Amino acid sequence: MDHTYRLVISCPDQVGIVASVSQFIAQHGGWLIEANYHSDREACWFFMRNEILAESLSSTAEEFRQGFSELARRFNMTWQLRDSQQRQRVALLASRASHCLADILHRWHSSELDCDIPCVISNHETLRSMVEWHDIPFHHVPVDPEDKAPAHAEIDRVLRQYQADVVVLARYMQIIPEQLCRRYAAAMLNIHHSFLPSFIGANPYQQAYQRGVKLIGATCHYVTAELDEGPIIEQDVVRVSHRQSVADLVRLGKDAEQRVLARGLRAHLEDRVMLHGNKTIVFD
Amino acid sequence: MDHTYRLVISCPDQVGIVASVSQFIAQHGGWLIEANYHSDREACWFFMRNEILAESLSSTAEEFRQGFSELARRFNMTWQLRDSQQRQRVALLASRASHCLADILHRWHSSELDCDIPCVISNHETLRSMVEWHDIPFHHVPVDPEDKAPAHAEIDRVLRQYQADVVVLARYMQIIPEQLCRRYAAAMLNIHHSFLPSFIGANPYQQAYQRGVKLIGATCHYVTAELDEGPIIEQDVVRVSHRQSVADLVRLGKDAEQRVLARGLRAHLEDRVMLHGNKTIVFD
Amino acid sequence: MDHTYRLVISCPDQVGIVASVSQFIAQHGGWLIEANYHSDREACWFFMRNEILAESLSSTAEEFRQGFSELARRFNMTWQLRDSQQRQRVALLASRASHCLADILHRWHSSELDCDIPCVISNHETLRSMVEWHDIPFHHVPVDPEDKAPAHAEIDRVLRQYQADVVVLARYMQIIPEQLCRRYAAAMLNIHHSFLPSFIGANPYQQAYQRGVKLIGATCHYVTAELDEGPIIEQDVVRVSHRQSVADLVRLGKDAEQRVLARGLRAHLEDRVMLHGNKTIVFD
Amino acid sequence: MDHTYRLVISCPDQVGIVASVSQFIAQHGGWLIEANYHSDREACWFFMRNEILAESLSSTAEEFRQGFSELARRFNMTWQLRDSQQRQRVALLASRASHCLADILHRWHSSELDCDIPCVISNHETLRSMVEWHDIPFHHVPVDPEDKAPAHAEIDRVLRQYQADVVVLARYMQIIPEQLCRRYAAAMLNIHHSFLPSFIGANPYQQAYQRGVKLIGATCHYVTAELDEGPIIEQDVVRVSHRQSVADLVRLGKDAEQRVLARGLRAHLEDRVMLHGNKTIVFD
Repeated sequence: MDHTYRLVISCPDQVGIVASVSQFIAQHGGWLIEANYHSDREACWFFMRNEILAESLSSTAEEFRQGFSELARRFNMTWQLRDSQQRQRVALLASRASHCLADILHRWHSSELDCDIPCVISNHETLRSMVEWHDIPFHHVPVDPEDKAPAHAEIDRVLRQYQADVVVLARYMQIIPEQLCRRYAAAMLNIHHSFLPSFIGANPYQQAYQRGVKLIGATCHYVTAELDEGPIIEQDVVRVSHRQSVADLVRLGKDAEQRVLARGLRAHLEDRVMLHGNKTIVFD
Repeated sequence: MDHTYRLVISCPDQVGIVASVSQFIAQHGGWLIEANYHSDREACWFFMRNEILAESLSSTAEEFRQGFSELARRFNMTWQLRDSQQRQRVALLASRASHCLADILHRWHSSELDCDIPCVISNHETLRSMVEWHDIPFHHVPVDPEDKAPAHAEIDRVLRQYQADVVVLARYMQIIPEQLCRRYAAAMLNIHHSFLPSFIGANPYQQAYQRGVKLIGATCHYVTAELDEGPIIEQDVVRVSHRQSVADLVRLGKDAEQRVLARGLRAHLEDRVMLHGNKTIVFD
Repeated sequence: MDHTYRLVISCPDQVGIVASVSQFIAQHGGWLIEANYHSDREACWFFMRNEILAESLSSTAEEFRQGFSELARRFNMTWQLRDSQQRQRVALLASRASHCLADILHRWHSSELDCDIPCVISNHETLRSMVEWHDIPFHHVPVDPEDKAPAHAEIDRVLRQYQADVVVLARYMQIIPEQLCRRYAAAMLNIHHSFLPSFIGANPYQQAYQRGVKLIGATCHYVTAELDEGPIIEQDVVRVSHRQSVADLVRLGKDAEQRVLARGLRAHLEDRVMLHGNKTIVFD
Repeated sequence: MDHTYRLVISCPDQVGIVASVSQFIAQHGGWLIEANYHSDREACWFFMRNEILAESLSSTAEEFRQGFSELARRFNMTWQLRDSQQRQRVALLASRASHCLADILHRWHSSELDCDIPCVISNHETLRSMVEWHDIPFHHVPVDPEDKAPAHAEIDRVLRQYQADVVVLARYMQIIPEQLCRRYAAAMLNIHHSFLPSFIGANPYQQAYQRGVKLIGATCHYVTAELDEGPIIEQDVVRVSHRQSVADLVRLGKDAEQRVLARGLRAHLEDRVMLHGNKTIVFD
């Protein structure tokens, strides 16, 4: 994989943004291996992602950042420059279902996902052995339905201990306290086992079965304090028919869940996802 | 196309249904070119579709029906035997949008859809010329928003005049009176421009745009008195992204609408769709 | 639809291309509503499409072109600036099958396709009435299998007469002479009724049936002198099973053909397709 | 999961097969939870799969078989009755790539795949630890390119030792000797990393990249002595564009390979796949 810097920008739209940014990059010798632009004409807002070959830059990342911050002020930009070699730390939360966790762990183990996985947290012991085979610390944090505060505090503590940059709810199936949602705003991903906004809430496959839909789906979204209402990153569907029982829908849905979560996480890690209100721009 | 009889059955499930039915068919010399079975184990209900080569039968359809009615009583069956050569009469209702109407008319014109189209009814004059080029009578029935009763009565009259067996709402965009919904129960098809149950009601593409979904869809369903709640026959989706405006969603959705309505109508005309509660069995 | 200029560029890759081009555009007041970039790192070649709001430009298109040609020379660019209001003239060739032709005509008739259709040429009379209903001249040019030269000359003459910019083979099913392939290089689109490179040549659905594939497809490609070997613009597939006969495959394939040809043509008309060797870059 | 018997039949088509078979089943008290029929009219051949609830049968499987064999002779049937509780023994062969193996092992581990996995054979040591974590014996059988006979003999021996019923080549990437192909006729599954018959042979992703296709695929097929020519069980595709390098195609293709192999294997284990010449009937 190339060593690159990813310069990600959003700002009010106007003439000359691309010119100024690309001139700045060129002046520092930056070789663009990928560039993406989006102009939201309704909101008059501009979004940009530039992937620059690190070895082509004539200045250090720090110098680049300092120089760029002036330009950024002029255009009123929200921006960041990420070094692709600084691997993000992704903490995983799971419950008893193994499919999403196993899929992410395998992609990580086979070097398909470019990140560190410092720990896995679960409210059950079920998946300990699978996690520990990967040499990843496993934290069992049971949740007392009568008093969830101690569990929430412990999750908070573990995430701080491992300095997690990103949190992935790999079918965790428990409510996340609002304070954690805020701390990991646009950095906590959930996989919902329906094609949102259909079948919000509990037992979406049971709901889908009862409505008699001909496609079931899965949705990867950022977690916000409003359950199942966060910005959608990725979705996909699977064809079903009258022949499938609820158990069949659950089984068939697993593949969609894995696929959608893996795509969403990959896009997030590559800084391809930008937020605008409750919607995402995904530069794939 | 073969001349066939389609024997379609549903009844409480028990041992021996297939044996009795297939023995009856065999005794009458019936050559099965297709047979489909479904056992809904939750409801303990059985569904069956047999397609029998007409020329293989040693008795007339009427004799077959008389003999079969005895067996049907024994198993408490709901059933019908349809002659594939008795083409069903499909009345189309449309408004100003042409895509679904044009698609159905072309499939009919090129002999892909095996039915008669006795008339098209619209609340606008826009599509008259397209319809009349196909030598199909066009009835303009404007709807007065203050008093819809005269329009409803006129639609009722026209459908009776042409003895419509099936009614297709090809993006008709107007409420159908409850009495017509009942008369055409499981015989009136609508195309809804969203992936139901998402985005029920008006402007689904606008709703989809605002929610930021990554797939949009279309749903073909039987019309019931409850708006957008009827049994789903067919659904499909189209991938979209942040790049698409509402107008783009409308355009991309058209293809899904056409495709889904055409598939649903074809399945209905071939007696492949069976109702069970608010769900469908589709033997495709 | 917005009035825009589309500036489409390809050139050897180097640092500073985006900077120079976007600076040039900004200096002329150009408001970018869409911009796409691709760097082919293997070939070290760069591709770019800029869509500029016409009303934002402070100079005329001609002045812009003159100024830009200097910059283009410096970077050794192949480029063009297209005015979105100069509608391209798309001549259609068809045979007896109506589905692709009907689909394109309907999209054009309902203003979904932004082009002129000056004429339709066919080796059969079958589709005359459908074409003439759209007020488009229909030219019947029968092809004598023993001596195709007169037909080829007549097609050539008709295309010149109507000053066709683009030629679409809407299931034309006849060989195009090499000289026409060259004249309309990257401007003549064909729809092949298979998922190329599978099932090259005649009767692809029969071939697909015999091989027992579980998906059939369609391919839109630019026509070159080598049959079915031209650069692929768009492809799609449809799921099939053992239940489908060859006739079913033909029917199901039609929908994929329509869809793929419509998407390919739209991309071409919007200057989204760029050629590199025998491959395409499609900025969708 | 229900305990069932699967009665799978193929024979020359004629009137009365379904009647005789279903009457026989009913006479033995058999409750059908699923029944599938296919009549290949071109070949005049009939295919049938009946899934019978074990507890409903009034006789033992052996008695059922004995009684049925007489009926089977009369209709010249090829048939078998499989007890769903007699789990098939599936030996896996892999090389260095882990994705297909990991996926099958996880589905097996989480009880999604109803079979035993007695051993994994590989020509490399790479995947030993992953296999042994699942408590499955791992056999390293290196292949000497100069003399493959010893490896082939050893594979043969291991498969016999573990009494494998089914062999799955989970990206094994080595030629299978003709004698093994024959022994495991219609019981050895391969996953080919292209949409067959496109890109037969080595490096299909490289071939796909060079041809510039817009979809890549994967094919699960039975292994025959003719490389990549065996009967196709399942296929699927993934959309790609000019943005993807060969490495990207390899990565994206993995998901399709896993999915297609898992579906094909599941269908095989549930006796849903029937062979006819070089084609399959898949009762899904």
